[in-house]
Amino acid sequence: MRVDLNADLGESFGAWRLGDDEALLELVTSANVACGFHAGDPTTLRGTCRAAAARGVTVGAQVGYRDLAGFGRRFVDVAPDDLEADVLYQLGALEAMCRVTATRVAYVKPHGALYNAVVHHERQAAAVVAAVRAYDPGLPLLGLPGSRLLALAEEAGLPTRTEAFADRGYRADGTLVPRSEPGALLHDADAIATRVVRLVTDGVVEAVDGSAVAVHADSVCIHGDTPGAVEVARSVRRHLEDAGVLVAPFATSARG
Amino acid sequence: MRVDLNADLGESFGAWRLGDDEALLELVTSANVACGFHAGDPTTLRGTCRAAAARGVTVGAQVGYRDLAGFGRRFVDVAPDDLEADVLYQLGALEAMCRVTATRVAYVKPHGALYNAVVHHERQAAAVVAAVRAYDPGLPLLGLPGSRLLALAEEAGLPTRTEAFADRGYRADGTLVPRSEPGALLHDADAIATRVVRLVTDGVVEAVDGSAVAVHADSVCIHGDTPGAVEVARSVRRHLEDAGVLVAPFATSARG
Amino acid sequence: MRVDLNADLGESFGAWRLGDDEALLELVTSANVACGFHAGDPTTLRGTCRAAAARGVTVGAQVGYRDLAGFGRRFVDVAPDDLEADVLYQLGALEAMCRVTATRVAYVKPHGALYNAVVHHERQAAAVVAAVRAYDPGLPLLGLPGSRLLALAEEAGLPTRTEAFADRGYRADGTLVPRSEPGALLHDADAIATRVVRLVTDGVVEAVDGSAVAVHADSVCIHGDTPGAVEVARSVRRHLEDAGVLVAPFATSARG
Amino acid sequence: MRVDLNADLGESFGAWRLGDDEALLELVTSANVACGFHAGDPTTLRGTCRAAAARGVTVGAQVGYRDLAGFGRRFVDVAPDDLEADVLYQLGALEAMCRVTATRVAYVKPHGALYNAVVHHERQAAAVVAAVRAYDPGLPLLGLPGSRLLALAEEAGLPTRTEAFADRGYRADGTLVPRSEPGALLHDADAIATRVVRLVTDGVVEAVDGSAVAVHADSVCIHGDTPGAVEVARSVRRHLEDAGVLVAPFATSARG
Repeated sequence: MRVDLNADLGESFGAWRLGDDEALLELVTSANVACGFHAGDPTTLRGTCRAAAARGVTVGAQVGYRDLAGFGRRFVDVAPDDLEADVLYQLGALEAMCRVTATRVAYVKPHGALYNAVVHHERQAAAVVAAVRAYDPGLPLLGLPGSRLLALAEEAGLPTRTEAFADRGYRADGTLVPRSEPGALLHDADAIATRVVRLVTDGVVEAVDGSAVAVHADSVCIHGDTPGAVEVARSVRRHLEDAGVLVAPFATSARG
Repeated sequence: MRVDLNADLGESFGAWRLGDDEALLELVTSANVACGFHAGDPTTLRGTCRAAAARGVTVGAQVGYRDLAGFGRRFVDVAPDDLEADVLYQLGALEAMCRVTATRVAYVKPHGALYNAVVHHERQAAAVVAAVRAYDPGLPLLGLPGSRLLALAEEAGLPTRTEAFADRGYRADGTLVPRSEPGALLHDADAIATRVVRLVTDGVVEAVDGSAVAVHADSVCIHGDTPGAVEVARSVRRHLEDAGVLVAPFATSARG
Repeated sequence: MRVDLNADLGESFGAWRLGDDEALLELVTSANVACGFHAGDPTTLRGTCRAAAARGVTVGAQVGYRDLAGFGRRFVDVAPDDLEADVLYQLGALEAMCRVTATRVAYVKPHGALYNAVVHHERQAAAVVAAVRAYDPGLPLLGLPGSRLLALAEEAGLPTRTEAFADRGYRADGTLVPRSEPGALLHDADAIATRVVRLVTDGVVEAVDGSAVAVHADSVCIHGDTPGAVEVARSVRRHLEDAGVLVAPFATSARG
Repeated sequence: MRVDLNADLGESFGAWRLGDDEALLELVTSANVACGFHAGDPTTLRGTCRAAAARGVTVGAQVGYRDLAGFGRRFVDVAPDDLEADVLYQLGALEAMCRVTATRVAYVKPHGALYNAVVHHERQAAAVVAAVRAYDPGLPLLGLPGSRLLALAEEAGLPTRTEAFADRGYRADGTLVPRSEPGALLHDADAIATRVVRLVTDGVVEAVDGSAVAVHADSVCIHGDTPGAVEVARSVRRHLEDAGVLVAPFATSARG
């Protein structure tokens, strides 16, 4: 049994700091590094890639909408052709930071509102897939099980990886409880960790209505920008290791 | 005898169009393609790289200050470490566009106020050199003869290429006439072309005071955003070819 | 009989020029001046306000999404509270430009994708109305007849003005033919002008299916960024004056 | 005896928080509120104005360079005419936020690198003065004693106010110790407070070489973004009040 732990990192911008990247890099195995469109200035990105490389943490490109003011959390109805170019631009920019820090972009995970959009938005999902395929058809896409993104990626022959959310409530049908509803967010670090262990070892998570839902995840996402994120990550990691689960990345950033 | 012709391209942004890229790509041999910080949205950059590749025009990265509102024409006192990261980010972003259009970044040329700054600004020149060296120590830097940029690049073991300006006046000491002074800009396409031929074949240009100045240039820059740029480029190219000069790029964007 | 003619102006940004503001300001009676979020740098805005004031053209605030790369033409799912603040910010910024050029913001017209969104998007329409009401409850909103924007504005006690589009096709139900369908755009300047005269004098426009549709408009919009815009504006204005229609603004930017 | 206490506020941007505005607003009498060019999104600005108004704290416009990535801390060689327009734009934008929160812009203080530039940069200082004068010739400029900004403001008939820095070392000639030198920054809250009291009551501050320097200041600046800023502000305010100094704004944001 094995699983990857991923978190969003490199989201500071200029004078503004966000998240405890140093602490999280000691706990996760994959770093979704921002690419400058929704967060992350070049100096931050390079530093995050360097810090990830130093700890053997795999680097993924956390591509997002071009919307610093909204932190990529607002849907933008960008034309597919432009979105494809935006994703390519971000991939290349982060790759340069990896190149000078002896690591590489080993997977792609859309961020924020783009992540949510490509669950169902056919044309935007196809644009992300087209960008990754054109850039490197061997690059895995990390996303939500059942999303259009992963379905289209598979059709296009791209590797795909699924993820679950450590601190999010699930409905009986396996979808996430919307943030506006009760039970959307879990806060207790130990409860979250216990839940993650069950998810990884049994492939099951308890839904808000008490039913057991089958969930398969290659990776578990830790939200890095919520209070207590480091504590949650630490608890999840310890519980997993105590349960004999190998916590390891699904892809490697080691350079050929 | 041979020389390269270069021009700034890919400088449109979103709804705003700038320059006649299609026409210039038929005439120049090297395209300094903007990288998004002073101009050039991702869709534009990809299109420009594709168009350059289709014509066998070499692609260079035209890196600039992060200043869309100022078009990179205002000096920004950015810290060297940040400038180095900014250059890396732009290099990688453009490289992604090259990668998906079957071409590659074959040289680097700073743009606008950054171009002028690195003639003398030691720390910014060193930052640009450090970025290019970290990214690819085989990538040539294109710049002004005698600039700190080229001197530091040579010290760092980077290839360098020099350029002259087709439509700019020179002083007796080989420096350019400042734009604020008479004789700074030449406008007549044939006069410019005759001058360029002499520069390439004799290594000499006539200064504003009538004296002959020795100028060596691997490449001649055509300003793409001035009225009549296409006509100037056409005239320069024809005169060079009539004089038996081989007009060819100094580097190739062909992918190994 | 009277009508206002409006056009989008002040949409240049830095080195990028857009539209022929000088020519259009001789023909329209109301200038929808961009406010910097989708287009318009401060120097441009001040110059456009000054030029409008010099010709007695009324200035309106053309507020848009914060999206320079998309020119405000992409829907952004911005939270209503943030949109309200964004609109206020833009209103104040343009007002400062009016203040130093002896004119004033005399109405508000949303731009691009925001214009389209507030036709039906209840929360965004309410946010725009809330911003204008908080800023100045006497400031008219210019928009599409039947839009949620104008309905909510009326409920809030704000003055409203309706507009028709000179160069757009109408459907039998009075809505515009979508740009993706045949008949969406008219190109012949004289045909457009004839149509506008009928619309103003008879309150009727011929729909794509040949039927006559009743349309009331306080103002007619000339698209400034399409080729031939100036010619269309000139033709419309001349035909209206020949028909004895008073072409005059619905609001005044005169101070005090 | 009286003095004003000012601090930079409203410098958050989107998802990124900066400074403890709530705590500082309880202690200072003037708030230099960012205007969106170097920091401060519209929602933040409106909230800061509202919070300042609720506490009777005077609002000033903290205008800066258009440089979010650099937080306005990098000199930008912007042309005077553009800088003048940039300042006007920012003034108007903040004024709109004041207008809807029952307060008003009562003074102007340049921020960061612009603050430092206008100490000696004649053309940029003149541009800031021209903007404020065109906007409202009764609006005071707050700046460094001896700066070109205040000299030109006085020549232009604008009211001026001088400030001292609570936590900065002074040289024997009354200028600040550069941040790169020892003694540039003071850290002990009580020592800072004692120093401020002496400055206000005796008009004297002890320089790094031990000599006494005459310094006149209408206002004392508390740096809001340094660790311990709130503690410093609290100590300064308490010591001033204990010494019988009236801590009060030099201008009022009360609306006519």
